[in-house]
Amino acid sequence: MSQNLIKPATIFTAKPPPICYFLFFIILCILGFYALHFPPRIPQNAALYRQMFLSSGDNYTLYSYLRALTQHPHLAGTKPSLDTANYVKTHFQTLGLETHVVPFKALLSYPLHASVALHFRNGTELKLPLNEVGISGYAVSGLVQPYHAYSPSGSAHAKVVFVNYGREEDYRALAVRGVDVNGCIVIARKGDDLGRGAVVEIAEAKGALAVLIYAEGDRSRGGFGTGVERGTVMRGVGDPQSPGWPGIEDGEKLGLQESEVLSRFPRIPSLPLPFETAQIILESLGGGLMPQEWRDSGQSRFSGVGPGPVMLNFTYQGEKKLATIYNVFAVIRGSEEPDRYVLLGNHRDAWTYGAVDPNSGTSALLDIARRYALLMRKGWNPRRTIVLCSWDAEEFGMIGSTEWVEQNLINLGAKAVAYLNVDCAVQGPGFFVGATPQLDNLIFEVTKKIKDPDSEGATVYEKWTTINGVKNIQRLNSVDSDFVPFLQHAGVPSVDIYYGSDFPVYHTAFDSFDWMINNADPFFHRHLAVTGIWGLLALHLADDSILPFNYHSYADQLKEYKDVLSSFVDNSISIALLTASIEELYSAAKQAEDEAKRLMEQEAAATSIILKMRALNDRLLLAEKGFLDPEGLKGRQWFKHLVYGPCNNHESKLVFFPGIADSIQESTRMSTGDEQKAIQHEIWKVARAIQRAAGALRGELS
Amino acid sequence: MSQNLIKPATIFTAKPPPICYFLFFIILCILGFYALHFPPRIPQNAALYRQMFLSSGDNYTLYSYLRALTQHPHLAGTKPSLDTANYVKTHFQTLGLETHVVPFKALLSYPLHASVALHFRNGTELKLPLNEVGISGYAVSGLVQPYHAYSPSGSAHAKVVFVNYGREEDYRALAVRGVDVNGCIVIARKGDDLGRGAVVEIAEAKGALAVLIYAEGDRSRGGFGTGVERGTVMRGVGDPQSPGWPGIEDGEKLGLQESEVLSRFPRIPSLPLPFETAQIILESLGGGLMPQEWRDSGQSRFSGVGPGPVMLNFTYQGEKKLATIYNVFAVIRGSEEPDRYVLLGNHRDAWTYGAVDPNSGTSALLDIARRYALLMRKGWNPRRTIVLCSWDAEEFGMIGSTEWVEQNLINLGAKAVAYLNVDCAVQGPGFFVGATPQLDNLIFEVTKKIKDPDSEGATVYEKWTTINGVKNIQRLNSVDSDFVPFLQHAGVPSVDIYYGSDFPVYHTAFDSFDWMINNADPFFHRHLAVTGIWGLLALHLADDSILPFNYHSYADQLKEYKDVLSSFVDNSISIALLTASIEELYSAAKQAEDEAKRLMEQEAAATSIILKMRALNDRLLLAEKGFLDPEGLKGRQWFKHLVYGPCNNHESKLVFFPGIADSIQESTRMSTGDEQKAIQHEIWKVARAIQRAAGALRGELS
Repeated sequence: MSQNLIKPATIFTAKPPPICYFLFFIILCILGFYALHFPPRIPQNAALYRQMFLSSGDNYTLYSYLRALTQHPHLAGTKPSLDTANYVKTHFQTLGLETHVVPFKALLSYPLHASVALHFRNGTELKLPLNEVGISGYAVSGLVQPYHAYSPSGSAHAKVVFVNYGREEDYRALAVRGVDVNGCIVIARKGDDLGRGAVVEIAEAKGALAVLIYAEGDRSRGGFGTGVERGTVMRGVGDPQSPGWPGIEDGEKLGLQESEVLSRFPRIPSLPLPFETAQIILESLGGGLMPQEWRDSGQSRFSGVGPGPVMLNFTYQGEKKLATIYNVFAVIRGSEEPDRYVLLGNHRDAWTYGAVDPNSGTSALLDIARRYALLMRKGWNPRRTIVLCSWDAEEFGMIGSTEWVEQNLINLGAKAVAYLNVDCAVQGPGFFVGATPQLDNLIFEVTKKIKDPDSEGATVYEKWTTINGVKNIQRLNSVDSDFVPFLQHAGVPSVDIYYGSDFPVYHTAFDSFDWMINNADPFFHRHLAVTGIWGLLALHLADDSILPFNYHSYADQLKEYKDVLSSFVDNSISIALLTASIEELYSAAKQAEDEAKRLMEQEAAATSIILKMRALNDRLLLAEKGFLDPEGLKGRQWFKHLVYGPCNNHESKLVFFPGIADSIQESTRMSTGDEQKAIQHEIWKVARAIQRAAGALRGELS
Repeated sequence: MSQNLIKPATIFTAKPPPICYFLFFIILCILGFYALHFPPRIPQNAALYRQMFLSSGDNYTLYSYLRALTQHPHLAGTKPSLDTANYVKTHFQTLGLETHVVPFKALLSYPLHASVALHFRNGTELKLPLNEVGISGYAVSGLVQPYHAYSPSGSAHAKVVFVNYGREEDYRALAVRGVDVNGCIVIARKGDDLGRGAVVEIAEAKGALAVLIYAEGDRSRGGFGTGVERGTVMRGVGDPQSPGWPGIEDGEKLGLQESEVLSRFPRIPSLPLPFETAQIILESLGGGLMPQEWRDSGQSRFSGVGPGPVMLNFTYQGEKKLATIYNVFAVIRGSEEPDRYVLLGNHRDAWTYGAVDPNSGTSALLDIARRYALLMRKGWNPRRTIVLCSWDAEEFGMIGSTEWVEQNLINLGAKAVAYLNVDCAVQGPGFFVGATPQLDNLIFEVTKKIKDPDSEGATVYEKWTTINGVKNIQRLNSVDSDFVPFLQHAGVPSVDIYYGSDFPVYHTAFDSFDWMINNADPFFHRHLAVTGIWGLLALHLADDSILPFNYHSYADQLKEYKDVLSSFVDNSISIALLTASIEELYSAAKQAEDEAKRLMEQEAAATSIILKMRALNDRLLLAEKGFLDPEGLKGRQWFKHLVYGPCNNHESKLVFFPGIADSIQESTRMSTGDEQKAIQHEIWKVARAIQRAAGALRGELS
């Protein structure tokens, strides 16, 4: 027993024999060697940092960013716009983030003079107001008068015809009543189907001399109906003088008289009108009787569509000129895969004050920068590189983002993980999102983590899905924000996030900080929600060791499209390969999913797995590229994506597979044989695109 | 001192106290943990395996492979051709290599009947021989009669005109003498400037009814001048019924009457003639006097160019039909980067016995398979995946390789390291190589390791460079072997290797094993050299941790091109951006070089470096893609490479920058203003392409 007492003592007191020192020495050498050659990979606790990100949200900072950004109107190419660029740059720099400002010289368009007057038979003339009622001193405040960017200068003295929403079907309804707009000035109300550019394009085709467009004010929302909607009428996206290539200093710029440049602009002038001014003109109309359904949809006060009898004097003078625009970037280098990019983008330029469009998004971007910088101070570094992008001149046709994407096409095509866009972060209540389908699941997961701004104790996901069901993620086939060059030209998986679907002060002088406070987001809780969702999506895409892409959702979506398509084509058209290609994508998605599971399990065993994960991620990235066709869509080569892109034809019923949609629309104009062949060929192309995507996802050579 | 004697003893005899066991246990745990989680990366001794590869060469195996492959003629689409596919497949499988056979149904073309007869004034007719003299029983031996694949069937009864080499300048020389070939049959001798297809294309444009082509027999080389050169006259590459997309089962196939398909075939028939037959026809010619320089170049025996006086009866009947072709692959999976591919390719199909063209290359491919399998048994595994490709139907227009590249476009574009082509491995003496410039240095290094087959104690490098100087690596802008789809369509860095620049039995019945033995390579030492160079290039590309790409050489080459170009255009054309873009490439190359050095030094420190190397290699791969233009070359969209590709115009002086070359050639047909603009635009495009390559190599977003 005494021994028992002594023994332990001896272990620590008895001077150990030399062999122990020898052993210690050996151990130290071995440990030293290993420590030096195989530093243990301490996996960052990404979940912890995501938690930290969520808890660092603050609606007051969002409020203050927005107030600072919206003090003055900041139209692209103007001094106040440069001030906002510097504000964003300084913000990034102050946070200690790597900051870049990339300027481009681009062709922008500004108004010089506009006038619209009714010319009565008795010779009297009534000059009509064109500016917002209740706003004075445009020049002083720096507000640009209402106009359509890239509208040609021109005058017209002619009778007016009301063309409802300006759609082809509206002109057909007029034709039935024997009303021809050829040689007339047309007035159209803003509808949901057509963009402003399309309204002008169709009117031009019908032989109209000029176009007036007004928005029906929603009187219910505190008298903001008097705003006048500015906007671009340029066709296509990007600087018209450098179509398809970057408009860099000393780069190629086409002359303004080149047909390729001219084709981007309307040939007839157009102007936006205040609601009241539009009413005066409509009241003056006699002529053909207005179709009942037009009246039912809010035109009950008027009966005539014209032409005339009263004449209208129309004059617009504008100038197109080279202006310098500024894209501002903050870069957070990835620690393990710095050559993989997760991009968050929002444009900064505004038609007026831009409280909603786009600076509600800008304030979110600035707050994400603040919160990421905070995480970095806590030791976080993303696995992949994160790039915060503040675009310029989006309002003129996504010029800032398009020229930059064209300049970085190869690197973005090979290395961009995803592009997350926020334009108008908050327009009103209700969560909305558009995305390429492989990102659906991630969006569901992330929205489950974010408090709903408008209902106590619920998550965004709960509120969102209870209101409009789960399957309500929109697809990005429109051409209306900066995701267009990323997805539709470069094939980068993309997301577009916003609160509120529509707002009455869109592109008007009333899109101000006050309006935001009084109407869209008094307490900036919706800003907070968007910021949380946006920033959390990026954290997953930047930190998850396996990219959170699910191509099963993509296959599901394509299957739906295929089913819809089959109802549009008769049996003479074969969709067999299309069906087969979607099955290929399903099995490739399954294969990738299983592989991801396996790798996650093995991840602990560190080093040997790194390249395997990288290789799988490369395949997950490459798959979207399969949907691109190098030759692009017929008649608009710049659009390379065969699943998501704009249709040429405004009446198209298909809002996906743009190439197929066009061939179906055009089919009426061809002999049946040619129709069949054209449609069939486009279907072949889409099927091959899906096969390419499946092959890229599978990764194996055939 | 006695202590000194005892102490050592005690260390090993004295029972150590328990703490030692305890320490041992700790050590074991620690070591176990490390061993489990950070298995030391034992870098394979690649140099050792390369040495092993070199020492395993054996000319006898090459000899036996070639003999086996050339026992029967094996024209693509025939049973004997399928036998060769099975021979190659069995060889790969016997070696234990992962083997794939990928069949395609493609439109091939075979002769049914041909006759050429002189029709004298006195009504007598002289039927002329069309087959090789001294070869009998074509049908029995399975030899195909001399013909031009894809020539339309047709007859002509007309006078003959001799058009020298059939170049534009030859027709101009005839025109000066008042000789018009319109409505005539033309006879041309084979020249170096024009391919057979181009000769027919030009004759067709001049209004000729049919074309006869003969090769001037080189009497010096053992009477093989009597051979008749078969060949394709199809325009473009790949299956004409699936232009730009893979001709897979159930895939889209255009109808034979579609204009896009018809445009691939000549509209007038043509035939190859034996030398003797050509002489008889030439002797019969009166008419215009032959230009002196034509006679100086070997036509001294004749004076007249025709037309006539004698009439010629020409008939050719052939059939185009779907046949199954077989690409055979052996895959050696990479151990660390299985998703990166080093491809070695050679076609297998032959017009006749194919001893030179292409099976000298096939025997080299089979021997490389044997030697790689040997290395694998010794424990070798390449870092990247190696794919041995045996193509079918190359002779008909690179159909096997083109359809496969089109099917794997996305994966090859993103993951193919390089494509190493060998067609006619041995035609005679002298080493020749063509390559994209980033591979020049590797070629120099590898040829320094290979014994020269024709001079004792010298390396291939020494012999080669002393004969034609160092700067004699050709560029791959021709359209004459399977590297075309890889480089000119998919932008994969490529190499083409062969011994001997030209051989008299090209595409004739005399391209036999006997001829090889008696003329080109009696002891198969040249085969051995090609095999060594080919296999060693692949080993470096597959095993080097940093890809052995040197873009400095590319910039050098582009600079030379730029200097040549500047002598073709006047000062009104700006090449400023072109110059700047090349400078960008230089600096990007330097940057990549420095980074490679740094990483090599750090490589020992294992794990953390793996992804960095992968990232740099990705950039080295991506750079070549920058030279591609998605829209492709004007008028031949399938060709995407703006530096290396065929010129549209046969008289073009520039053999690089095909887009610029064409615009310069066409310039004579346009008003000066348009000329300038067209040329300038093409120069802009090339400059942007080089900037894309530099940007991809730099890897940074702008």
